Amino acid sequence: MKKHNFNAGPSILPQEVIENAAKAVLDFNGSGLSLLSISHRTKDFDAVMDQAIGLFHELLDIPENYKIIFLGGGASTQFFEVPANFLNTKAGYVNTGVWSKKAIKEAKRYGQVEVLATSEDKNFTYIPKGFAIPTDLDYLHITTNNTIYGTEYHEDIDSPVPVIADMSSDILSRPIDVKKYAMIYGGAQKNLAPAGVTFAIIREDMLDKIVRDLPTMVNYKTHTENNSMFNTPPVFPIYVLAETLKWAKNLGGVKELYRRNVEKATLLYDEIDRNPLFRGTTAKEDRSLMNICFVMSEGNEGLADAFMEFAKSKGMVGLKGHRLVGGFRASCYNALPKESVEALVACMQEFEKMHK
Amino acid sequence: MKKHNFNAGPSILPQEVIENAAKAVLDFNGSGLSLLSISHRTKDFDAVMDQAIGLFHELLDIPENYKIIFLGGGASTQFFEVPANFLNTKAGYVNTGVWSKKAIKEAKRYGQVEVLATSEDKNFTYIPKGFAIPTDLDYLHITTNNTIYGTEYHEDIDSPVPVIADMSSDILSRPIDVKKYAMIYGGAQKNLAPAGVTFAIIREDMLDKIVRDLPTMVNYKTHTENNSMFNTPPVFPIYVLAETLKWAKNLGGVKELYRRNVEKATLLYDEIDRNPLFRGTTAKEDRSLMNICFVMSEGNEGLADAFMEFAKSKGMVGLKGHRLVGGFRASCYNALPKESVEALVACMQEFEKMHK
Repeated sequence: MKKHNFNAGPSILPQEVIENAAKAVLDFNGSGLSLLSISHRTKDFDAVMDQAIGLFHELLDIPENYKIIFLGGGASTQFFEVPANFLNTKAGYVNTGVWSKKAIKEAKRYGQVEVLATSEDKNFTYIPKGFAIPTDLDYLHITTNNTIYGTEYHEDIDSPVPVIADMSSDILSRPIDVKKYAMIYGGAQKNLAPAGVTFAIIREDMLDKIVRDLPTMVNYKTHTENNSMFNTPPVFPIYVLAETLKWAKNLGGVKELYRRNVEKATLLYDEIDRNPLFRGTTAKEDRSLMNICFVMSEGNEGLADAFMEFAKSKGMVGLKGHRLVGGFRASCYNALPKESVEALVACMQEFEKMHK
Repeated sequence: MKKHNFNAGPSILPQEVIENAAKAVLDFNGSGLSLLSISHRTKDFDAVMDQAIGLFHELLDIPENYKIIFLGGGASTQFFEVPANFLNTKAGYVNTGVWSKKAIKEAKRYGQVEVLATSEDKNFTYIPKGFAIPTDLDYLHITTNNTIYGTEYHEDIDSPVPVIADMSSDILSRPIDVKKYAMIYGGAQKNLAPAGVTFAIIREDMLDKIVRDLPTMVNYKTHTENNSMFNTPPVFPIYVLAETLKWAKNLGGVKELYRRNVEKATLLYDEIDRNPLFRGTTAKEDRSLMNICFVMSEGNEGLADAFMEFAKSKGMVGLKGHRLVGGFRASCYNALPKESVEALVACMQEFEKMHK
């Protein structure tokens, strides 16, 4: 049976990328060696790194004064590395859920943290807006997509201070104005790569603001100055990331991915809104294109397990909602085909008929 | 032409492991999903993690009071995490080359560092022995195998203070007495896995000695208490690591790997010592089984490029010595078949005949 992969992360990657990755594991570029067994200091891998960086610049229209680096340790490591590098006296954070909270917790070790806005009052079902941004902050930190709750910023914030954004789960899903950010980072295991590589896009002037004496591996300059090759980088995940970017370019770039993502999300949200058995969990204007959360509607809560079983029987994978929200979460990342969303919608409609 | 992979790292992995990895990339465990697209919080991946930890315990006879964790960021990240966690007032380091030096540099941020012994006087061509170990150290740090210079400790040190060892390039290559170590760590991209995962084996009592308030991701307890699942671990590299451990077990375990490594190294060192065109670069008693360094003998220096070209023409890959040593380095990790060493020896002998 065909599987429909709605995993929240690590998550679905394009089939052709997976096939290329399997080939490269067996024989990389016809070298007679596995991609897993080559030195990272070779022309062939330099080319992969250059391609990953070049395509990132091209696809997101990243200006030349931004450096792109690839690291290990996940976004969770960035939660402390961001303030370690950039929090001199005071930073502002917006609290939109678990990942924001974790970032706030780590930042407090390095200086004063002002939580400028939070949606905790309604279990993070919306994105706070219209909050004031003090001008004396070292930076403002936001989480652009909240994987657990299914909320997402749909606009790039205007800010008088540098904006640093965790885009782990919506990078490359929609056009963004990179110039409005001082730094963008994220674990790559949703839209870009398998688990094991973290990306960071850093405006060069920020690198001159690193005031602390930091461990070599924590200092972003170590990596920007060595093209992510100060130490052995995660070769295979970076290769897959480069292949994913190639796939995205061939498809028509971020605009086309965004068009597809809107199309998929609209299909599913429309069904959630129409189908009397279900209801969405977030404010409509802040609905995520990536992580679509829904629960059984009032009075139908008892059908949750039955729906989950039914969906599984139809090949749906990874639909269980996070325990903090409950219900269901359909993660619809770039590589998820429209057919999978259509299959889920059909499943919801069939389930509705069964329970009339 | 068959390639003989002498890469220093990332380096050769067993062919059956590579084939299993390629299969898992296409379809993991017959799930219909790629290993790259599954959640790390699934029974199937739990089983991989359990297997990796279980086999590690079994193969190296690691007592139950040691925790095994898998991290990102490479050994370079451990260079600061070790002292961040364990350096309270003073630590001892042995300087056996570049990697030791890097570890020493990071440790100095956290306390007093005493370099108890160094082989810098002879470009790190030997392992210092018989040095005194003060009893007031928080720990003693050693680098058991020095990839660049081709030196290796052949005995587990007796120490009155906890020993912490970087075993990046010789883990699993020889039996060790784990009980003599408080912690063993390393990048896994030589004997265990592709680049992107770091292993750490930590005696439990050490975890009670963490005195600093550390960033969550830097504190080893975060990872020991969450079975390396506090955040998304590098799924694919951990899978390959588990497969490599399975391969090692099926082969007969560490004893058998050691027997093979001694056999391979003896073959090559014997030829280096016999062949008048070449000479070894390190003290014989400290020669590494993993990284075999040699140069052209006196008067034959001019033949270096010609030998490199000749070796390449015979399918040898990764033979170039590190720039700090020059000449040649044949890395003979666990997965390197004896046939590759035999091919190199034949190549050296043929080259000798050509230049008589």
